[in-house]
Amino acid sequence: MGLLNNFYNPNAVAVVGASKKPGKVGHSIVKNLIESGFPGQIYPVNPKEEEIEGLTVYPSVTAIPEQVDLVVVAVPAARTLDVARECGEKGVKNLVVVTAGFKEIGKEGLDLEKELVAICHQYGMRMLGPNCVGMMDTHTPINASFTKTFPLKGDIAFLSQSGATLIAILDWSRSVGLGFSKMVSLGNKGDLSEIDFIAEAAEDPYTRVIACYLEDVADGSRFLEVVREATRKKPVIILKSGTSQAGAQAASSHTGALAGSDLAYDTAFRQCGVIRARSMTELFELAIAFSRCPVPAGKKVAIVTNSGGPGIVATDNVEARSLTMARFTRETIEELRGGLPAEAALYNPVDVLGDARADRYRFALEKVLADPNVDSIVVLMCPTAVAQPLETTQAVIELQKKYPHKPIMGVYLGGESMAEGARLMSEAGMTCFTFPEPAIAAINGLVSYGEFRNTPVGESDLIYPDVDKKAVKAIFYDAMRDNRLVLLGSEAAAVARAYGIPAAPISLATTPEEAVEEAEKMGYPVVLKVASPKILHKTDVGGVKIGLDSPEAVRKGFIEIMENVHRLLPQAVVYGIEVQKMMPKGVELIIGMTRDVQFGPMIACGLGGIYVNLLKDVSFRLAQGLTRREIEAMLSETKAYTLLRGYRGEKPADLPALVEAIGRTARLVLDFPEINEIDINPVFVYNQGLSALDIKITIS
Amino acid sequence: MGLLNNFYNPNAVAVVGASKKPGKVGHSIVKNLIESGFPGQIYPVNPKEEEIEGLTVYPSVTAIPEQVDLVVVAVPAARTLDVARECGEKGVKNLVVVTAGFKEIGKEGLDLEKELVAICHQYGMRMLGPNCVGMMDTHTPINASFTKTFPLKGDIAFLSQSGATLIAILDWSRSVGLGFSKMVSLGNKGDLSEIDFIAEAAEDPYTRVIACYLEDVADGSRFLEVVREATRKKPVIILKSGTSQAGAQAASSHTGALAGSDLAYDTAFRQCGVIRARSMTELFELAIAFSRCPVPAGKKVAIVTNSGGPGIVATDNVEARSLTMARFTRETIEELRGGLPAEAALYNPVDVLGDARADRYRFALEKVLADPNVDSIVVLMCPTAVAQPLETTQAVIELQKKYPHKPIMGVYLGGESMAEGARLMSEAGMTCFTFPEPAIAAINGLVSYGEFRNTPVGESDLIYPDVDKKAVKAIFYDAMRDNRLVLLGSEAAAVARAYGIPAAPISLATTPEEAVEEAEKMGYPVVLKVASPKILHKTDVGGVKIGLDSPEAVRKGFIEIMENVHRLLPQAVVYGIEVQKMMPKGVELIIGMTRDVQFGPMIACGLGGIYVNLLKDVSFRLAQGLTRREIEAMLSETKAYTLLRGYRGEKPADLPALVEAIGRTARLVLDFPEINEIDINPVFVYNQGLSALDIKITIS
Repeated sequence: MGLLNNFYNPNAVAVVGASKKPGKVGHSIVKNLIESGFPGQIYPVNPKEEEIEGLTVYPSVTAIPEQVDLVVVAVPAARTLDVARECGEKGVKNLVVVTAGFKEIGKEGLDLEKELVAICHQYGMRMLGPNCVGMMDTHTPINASFTKTFPLKGDIAFLSQSGATLIAILDWSRSVGLGFSKMVSLGNKGDLSEIDFIAEAAEDPYTRVIACYLEDVADGSRFLEVVREATRKKPVIILKSGTSQAGAQAASSHTGALAGSDLAYDTAFRQCGVIRARSMTELFELAIAFSRCPVPAGKKVAIVTNSGGPGIVATDNVEARSLTMARFTRETIEELRGGLPAEAALYNPVDVLGDARADRYRFALEKVLADPNVDSIVVLMCPTAVAQPLETTQAVIELQKKYPHKPIMGVYLGGESMAEGARLMSEAGMTCFTFPEPAIAAINGLVSYGEFRNTPVGESDLIYPDVDKKAVKAIFYDAMRDNRLVLLGSEAAAVARAYGIPAAPISLATTPEEAVEEAEKMGYPVVLKVASPKILHKTDVGGVKIGLDSPEAVRKGFIEIMENVHRLLPQAVVYGIEVQKMMPKGVELIIGMTRDVQFGPMIACGLGGIYVNLLKDVSFRLAQGLTRREIEAMLSETKAYTLLRGYRGEKPADLPALVEAIGRTARLVLDFPEINEIDINPVFVYNQGLSALDIKITIS
Repeated sequence: MGLLNNFYNPNAVAVVGASKKPGKVGHSIVKNLIESGFPGQIYPVNPKEEEIEGLTVYPSVTAIPEQVDLVVVAVPAARTLDVARECGEKGVKNLVVVTAGFKEIGKEGLDLEKELVAICHQYGMRMLGPNCVGMMDTHTPINASFTKTFPLKGDIAFLSQSGATLIAILDWSRSVGLGFSKMVSLGNKGDLSEIDFIAEAAEDPYTRVIACYLEDVADGSRFLEVVREATRKKPVIILKSGTSQAGAQAASSHTGALAGSDLAYDTAFRQCGVIRARSMTELFELAIAFSRCPVPAGKKVAIVTNSGGPGIVATDNVEARSLTMARFTRETIEELRGGLPAEAALYNPVDVLGDARADRYRFALEKVLADPNVDSIVVLMCPTAVAQPLETTQAVIELQKKYPHKPIMGVYLGGESMAEGARLMSEAGMTCFTFPEPAIAAINGLVSYGEFRNTPVGESDLIYPDVDKKAVKAIFYDAMRDNRLVLLGSEAAAVARAYGIPAAPISLATTPEEAVEEAEKMGYPVVLKVASPKILHKTDVGGVKIGLDSPEAVRKGFIEIMENVHRLLPQAVVYGIEVQKMMPKGVELIIGMTRDVQFGPMIACGLGGIYVNLLKDVSFRLAQGLTRREIEAMLSETKAYTLLRGYRGEKPADLPALVEAIGRTARLVLDFPEINEIDINPVFVYNQGLSALDIKITIS
């Protein structure tokens, strides 16, 4: 039954807008339902017809004598509202609206779509579409769509935001013998979206892999929540096209500029365990591999080949990915030595030589499979004069049964000579490619997924009971009343401190004397920085003086900065000059936050300083659901991590303090959605503790 | 006739070691020669047989009544020397030695191979192999190999260092309908190598594209010289497998460590215009595209599609590559608007909508092709209900004839529905893919090649008449006599100065007093650095003092460094302490050189300083054939370039001075092959001029 109430296996289906005329969408749907072998009743609905394809036609949904779980709607857009209401009255559970002319045509269509969705919700109905091709389930079976054909039976669920792509993939899949459990054309995603179908497919006993083509995500926050759970159960592979505009909008901060346009999707997918395909080919290569292969225990790959060249190519590929070549145990080597010719290569890749027949492949494969240091295997075969593709494949199939937890991928290089072997392998539910690269890419996908599934489920542990929300609210209140969207440095530091992020002492002074007074309080040396919300890059306008170690120096610095700023930016509103205690140098990082329209706040960390945009050594994570472990993983992806661990004889930096500061920054932006962007640059991380120096916070 | 003397089109062929027994290599070759339709005489040679496959057998090559241009040798390794001598006496021009048991089996085989090559050279014969599958030419036609089949006729020359790969590709190519002009199994490359065959194929009228699978390059220097010319005439695409060990060996310098194992090949291929394929699939996808498509004038791609989704995927791919989406002229937009339905997307990608038939495709394509802002076109088609793949293909073929200089790539998404259209396109000599990605990759390859071919041929212009070779020799002489392979800093600076590279003043002092004296001469402030060939990272052992601005500071620094070094590295031989004038800070770069075993000296430049290995912002070029233009291109690939052009309000740095310093470094290492490695780190580049500070030179 699934999460969607009898969506894929309704008791009966009605087609509103059914037509007698071949070529019409309303005819194709009726014909497809019949031809798919749908086991329930099919009710064509059309007030003007009496019989279509041998079925009695009903004038309206309400006229149908029995309960109907699913109604496919193929009437003009303007009529869909009435039909939906009628279905609601009838107690229909689900609609598939193929009709176009909604959101995709602009404002008018969008309004109509909203009304349609409202009617569905009013009656507790769910809707696929509008503007979609429909859906197919090969196990029910049901074809509630206007495609030309029906997919082969299989265990891949395919969800597509593009109807034409779905039709093309269906056509292609039949020609290459690829089967599906379900195919769903998502259309405009007015009500049901990829999120619902992914959740459903994760529970579906007929589905092993979920493959999606998406152009956007319906609801970032819910996507993260639902898909994070789904990927624990089954692999979800997504080809996401189109670039998000979010990054481009938010380019006023360093962090925003670094985030780029597509980063939020990349980050979101990784954080919830989605495997991102980079091409259509890869989407299905991965889907096939996942539907057929066990997930290997680790990344150690063995290669058995009858020729050197392709073995080297495969080895290159293993090393280019995050995989490793297995190192066999001494026993394996000895056993291989005992059974293979003297010229054979015994180390990985194992070269069983050009004169190898099936028996030699079987021998070598069995030894390699038994090796505890081997997690997965690639069987490479070239069509040499004596190669026995069929017999070798037979051996491979038997061995896969004997070692069901270690995936064996075939790479049969060639054409006609290898076709029978490849077909046999495929029929046995195994994977066989023509060239080495996709096989290694598929293993890489399997391994990444295995690694993800092996990490413990991380509940967000960024809980800091000591944070002072009231203090932050008070500061924001002042800034808003003042009509400032960029906080002053001293305000930003106070916000940070309220959340337990150690900010360097900083105060605003409006006269040279006040500056001296503040400097005396915090102790020399100090830095002076012009305080003006309009000046984002203070150094560039001579608005910063460093290393001032006496009252005279502070007084002089104050006056010079004011002169510089007035000369270069005469129109800028200057609030005064901030006096900041000069902190000892540590590892210089940036901690930042930029907000993505889909997925909310993204936290960044990496090498800081004035070259941050040049070096681009920054890693990102979504704040939603972030854990301390993930923060550590984020840090470990940066070059800065090398510095933090102690570079060239330096003492290691205080990683726990840094993780906490990042966690508290994430907490802050989750608690205050009005924070638009944060740049803390630099953060000096010391052997013990850290200090946040220049903090920029913009609010909305 | 080609550069190789009648190699592919001999008057007659003899097969020494011909056999009557099917399955034997010596039988396959004779049979293949007959079946290929070779127009000349075929002479099987075997003292024990009289007739093979209807041909008269001769007891020896000398017994053959006429001149024989080509002899295929398939006798055991030990007998090959005698056979080669006999062929030499007979006046044979070329040998194809398929026999194995040479270099590939170790020392003994290598010696035999050397002897065999020597005999060939003695008689002026050229040899393919040994240990190869043979060669095929579909235009002669001739099959001088022991493959099972013969390639289809085509215009791709395929050279393979792996015999099994050649056999596999041949098998595969027949099943996908791909043809070749020549196929050559390079074997051990004892005499003839890829260099000879690339040079030959570049002149061959039947070859449009040269595709190679290589595991190494026979002679780096000659490769560069010959292939650089070949790529001007025809595209050369190489899949290079295996990782060179060169990089790993040379890891004592920063530059060497950064170079990595495969970088020399990458650099060499780029510098001589070779297109490097990253996978077997890509090798042939590119080869097919190059053999069928014109090279576009630029990088502006137009997409015409009947569905949105794949159009977006294609657009993503265009933007991910170094291509751009074409922006149509206003006229084109207006014309499209006039002829397409109101809902059609007129801007690139042009969406002719799901109900488009062939006529609408023809209309849109014609307008887009006529647009001067369009360089190449992708025709995307999904199997919609009304799609007309055959008629549309007909239109595409006609339009390609009308606009022969703009490549049109088909992407027909689907299976059976699109198969006929794709076949028709292929038969017309055009390219059609199933998914968008390889089409865009192919256009990208074509564009890169076009750009390469449009750059003027660069003759090496690193000519500096003012260099003082004698001074360098004298310094090397002293160091060698002293048994030092690492020059002292002061020596290295002198070498640099002799080649016109502005090194900061530096002198060696052995006592505090001497240090003060030198400092007084060059002026304060100065830096003190321990002078010891064994200490590569001086800062790490407290061997450096900076900013010393008085005699007292110099004296004190001298003593402290000596104490530090003696405490941390008591065993290190210390030559004294070098006093160097402290130079003002500039943009901090590294200039370096590491030597690759295949391709010789590689010059590096990028961000310098102590984080050079962390930041890895370094670009490389081979010194051989390097030009000033290439040095500029190398710089432009680095992040340092952004700094050099003036980052965040800084004045731009003196690029011409930097280019000259790099050029002079290249000149130095070309003139002195005994220089093993150079690191100049940092080089401070100023607004005017530059200064090389820490110079490390190791010699061999």
